[in-house]
Amino acid sequence: MTEDTPFRPDARAPRGFADKRAAQLRAERGIVEAVSAVYERWGFEPLDTGAFEYADALGKFLPDSDRPNEGVFALQDDDEQWMALRYDLTAPLARFAAQNWETLPKPYRRYAFGPVWRNEKPGPGRFREFIQCDADTVGSARPEADAEIIAMAAEGLEAAGLPRGTSVLKINNRKLLNGLLTTAGVESAGQKLAVLRAVDKLDRLGADGVKLLLGEGRLDESGAFTKGAGLQAKAAEQVLAFLSAGRADNAATLAALSDIVGGSEEGAQGVEEVAKIAAALKALGVGEDRAGIDPSIVRGLEYYTGAVFEAELLLQTTDEKGQPVRFGSIGGGGRYDDLVARFTGQATPATGFSFGVSRLAAALKAAGREEAGAARGPVVVIAFDQDSMGEYFAVAAELRGAGIAAEVYLGSSGMKAQMKYADRRNAPAAIMLGGDEIAAGTATIKDLDLGRALAAKIEGHDAYKSERPGQQTVPRAELVARVKAIVDAVS
Amino acid sequence: MTEDTPFRPDARAPRGFADKRAAQLRAERGIVEAVSAVYERWGFEPLDTGAFEYADALGKFLPDSDRPNEGVFALQDDDEQWMALRYDLTAPLARFAAQNWETLPKPYRRYAFGPVWRNEKPGPGRFREFIQCDADTVGSARPEADAEIIAMAAEGLEAAGLPRGTSVLKINNRKLLNGLLTTAGVESAGQKLAVLRAVDKLDRLGADGVKLLLGEGRLDESGAFTKGAGLQAKAAEQVLAFLSAGRADNAATLAALSDIVGGSEEGAQGVEEVAKIAAALKALGVGEDRAGIDPSIVRGLEYYTGAVFEAELLLQTTDEKGQPVRFGSIGGGGRYDDLVARFTGQATPATGFSFGVSRLAAALKAAGREEAGAARGPVVVIAFDQDSMGEYFAVAAELRGAGIAAEVYLGSSGMKAQMKYADRRNAPAAIMLGGDEIAAGTATIKDLDLGRALAAKIEGHDAYKSERPGQQTVPRAELVARVKAIVDAVS
Repeated sequence: MTEDTPFRPDARAPRGFADKRAAQLRAERGIVEAVSAVYERWGFEPLDTGAFEYADALGKFLPDSDRPNEGVFALQDDDEQWMALRYDLTAPLARFAAQNWETLPKPYRRYAFGPVWRNEKPGPGRFREFIQCDADTVGSARPEADAEIIAMAAEGLEAAGLPRGTSVLKINNRKLLNGLLTTAGVESAGQKLAVLRAVDKLDRLGADGVKLLLGEGRLDESGAFTKGAGLQAKAAEQVLAFLSAGRADNAATLAALSDIVGGSEEGAQGVEEVAKIAAALKALGVGEDRAGIDPSIVRGLEYYTGAVFEAELLLQTTDEKGQPVRFGSIGGGGRYDDLVARFTGQATPATGFSFGVSRLAAALKAAGREEAGAARGPVVVIAFDQDSMGEYFAVAAELRGAGIAAEVYLGSSGMKAQMKYADRRNAPAAIMLGGDEIAAGTATIKDLDLGRALAAKIEGHDAYKSERPGQQTVPRAELVARVKAIVDAVS
Repeated sequence: MTEDTPFRPDARAPRGFADKRAAQLRAERGIVEAVSAVYERWGFEPLDTGAFEYADALGKFLPDSDRPNEGVFALQDDDEQWMALRYDLTAPLARFAAQNWETLPKPYRRYAFGPVWRNEKPGPGRFREFIQCDADTVGSARPEADAEIIAMAAEGLEAAGLPRGTSVLKINNRKLLNGLLTTAGVESAGQKLAVLRAVDKLDRLGADGVKLLLGEGRLDESGAFTKGAGLQAKAAEQVLAFLSAGRADNAATLAALSDIVGGSEEGAQGVEEVAKIAAALKALGVGEDRAGIDPSIVRGLEYYTGAVFEAELLLQTTDEKGQPVRFGSIGGGGRYDDLVARFTGQATPATGFSFGVSRLAAALKAAGREEAGAARGPVVVIAFDQDSMGEYFAVAAELRGAGIAAEVYLGSSGMKAQMKYADRRNAPAAIMLGGDEIAAGTATIKDLDLGRALAAKIEGHDAYKSERPGQQTVPRAELVARVKAIVDAVS
């Protein structure tokens, strides 16, 4: 390669990494700010750990410890230690809590948000970097700590923009599930896992499908056979009875659960914990319509040891083809009493809730709750000639002084391209200060919001136009007030 | 290793990566939010690119392209392509702008903030991950675009908390420097670089030191010799005259610069650009005390092609030993017209400003402008007994309803440890609801803000106490108002 043919790299982002622009970023930041304010109000303090953790600290989060670059983005530091970009925000919290336990106020209540990275095969809508938002209490074994996390999650989702009634927190407890397995005579770890996996498919396969997976196995439509957990019919019936033990209210559900798993010590403990969570939620003013017991919730992660909970969007949404689809889970969490002990050897109970910010933004969009004006741009002052730049700058500064986003066009194109620029920026208005206007002490305002509204619903054209002028020339002294009226109007 | 002796990883963060807690995070977020609001008001839209870029896209940002893991954190993707964590926010912008140029509104004005990573030797105060905040205009060659970035940077620093007069933007132009080098007869690229490097040390070595480095070389105190640029005495005098061409106001400085470098074409062009920047700043209402021409500013980065600017903290601060130190640069930027062309081959002028958020937070701290209450915790409701948890939760919910951060203690320790917890959380107050209080419909408030104030200035003890009770028992109905009075007070 010679000096005459310089290397020109292809301008492209790595696969699975997204460039986010204004509308999406503003929506996601709105969520993070609203939820953070709620978490702060509940006494949770922010924590930000670095992007990397040592691979050994990630431990069971690593899909394959022999190949540290599988599942996570890992590299060797110059001292040969393997580091990996964090896969979630729970592992760094466990490391931080273990590292600083002596000096932390206990219980330690923290929230965190930030990117996490997963080295997985990217695809449409499947990213390798995304923002998570978590809140956790480390050092409290009380069921009230779980209840508080659940209540705060419910309040957080509402603050983020989901109206009450459009989502619900569903609560279960791994101890109930363990009690059920004991009661059903399931003893081997392998069989337990097979049962949990079958139960986790209730959503997708329904009770009949789960029944097959609890027994000998299931043949799917493609002809593929999934081997089942091998439970006897009676045991499978017990599991299915457990899954459908949800009743009209928490008290009735608890009674039904007690009947099924109360005979096992762990099951009885689970019933007691869930009852305490339910009582605390009542004291916190969280009704059962916002957070209720649902025995069919399992949660995928292996590390949960007690309460598990999942936030579900109740709205029916439609896919690209207009078909109705269940949006499903928009967050979840639970109690994980063993993660800090992995470092310290000392039992350290912990519980928390996590959601993906982009996924919640998508849920809000599906719920028709997109933030108004997220894509809105600044007012654009048209630049007619170089000699009047000072005038244009003064007008823009005046608008900004009134809290209105404004800029002077700084490219080198003519009037037509400038108007096109203003439109692409989604500007509410363009300001024109030609020689005549400057001499007369006036300014012309072009109402671009109105133009877009007219273009969108052309039928209401005349009625709309009669109320609001598309273009007006006003005294300079009135300019800011007139522009503000356009910016503040909901058009 | 057997089941009995499980592996216990050491709980530690990788070297050079910091865990940030509440006070620091709140200070840094306050800066980012305030500055973002300014940038939005100037018509800049947010952009967030992924953490990784392909190594070839980083190009000259890579210190050593043969060893892609030097200077940056790089790894090979599963398709063998080298990716690296972004080293700054300019390279990803250049890649994004090149990739999307056809569909972007032009000029493209964007701001961005987020972590950047440098694979350098960590040390005290030297981190390998830190937050940068940038604003850039791509696609405008106008000096007004530089002026706008400078004016916005000045407004941003004030919005972040630096009172007017405590910082200044210093403006120079590489074309002036190039004109100077031509005038001084410096022609080889190597000699040019040596001159720029010498000039860049003016701050540290003074005019005498720079003079030595412009000539044969300089012997430092340790006995090490730095070879100089090898200029003749007359040429070195010209350079030094240029560096000290700063006058009482921009007009006089421009005249002095014109005398020195106006004879070269590029120098004359530099004078014209700087004059236009100065005129635009005046139109934008930015006085010379906030942004003025300073010929001694060079900026380290090689890629600048025109205007360069640097924000400097004017306050004198003290180091750990109480010695006065200059805090120096708190941000900088300039015009880089060649970076997008690296991808596209088409000239695409660009200019921008960047600052490190942690460094600005440190500057604010040095300026005594730490955000009040950044370390403040929630009001803590003491948990006396399990049976009254419902009462405690109700009180905490009531306080939160009034916008007061509040929590119920959820650990398992006694009264004394709970008070210690509240103090470590920096709680403004603790609420006690014993059996007597609940029966009587009252609550006891312990004023922890007052306690800390008394501990800090014990001499004012009596006077302080007479105005504000350390502990008060109030009717439940008055609780929220009384707590709010404590939270809102500046103590």
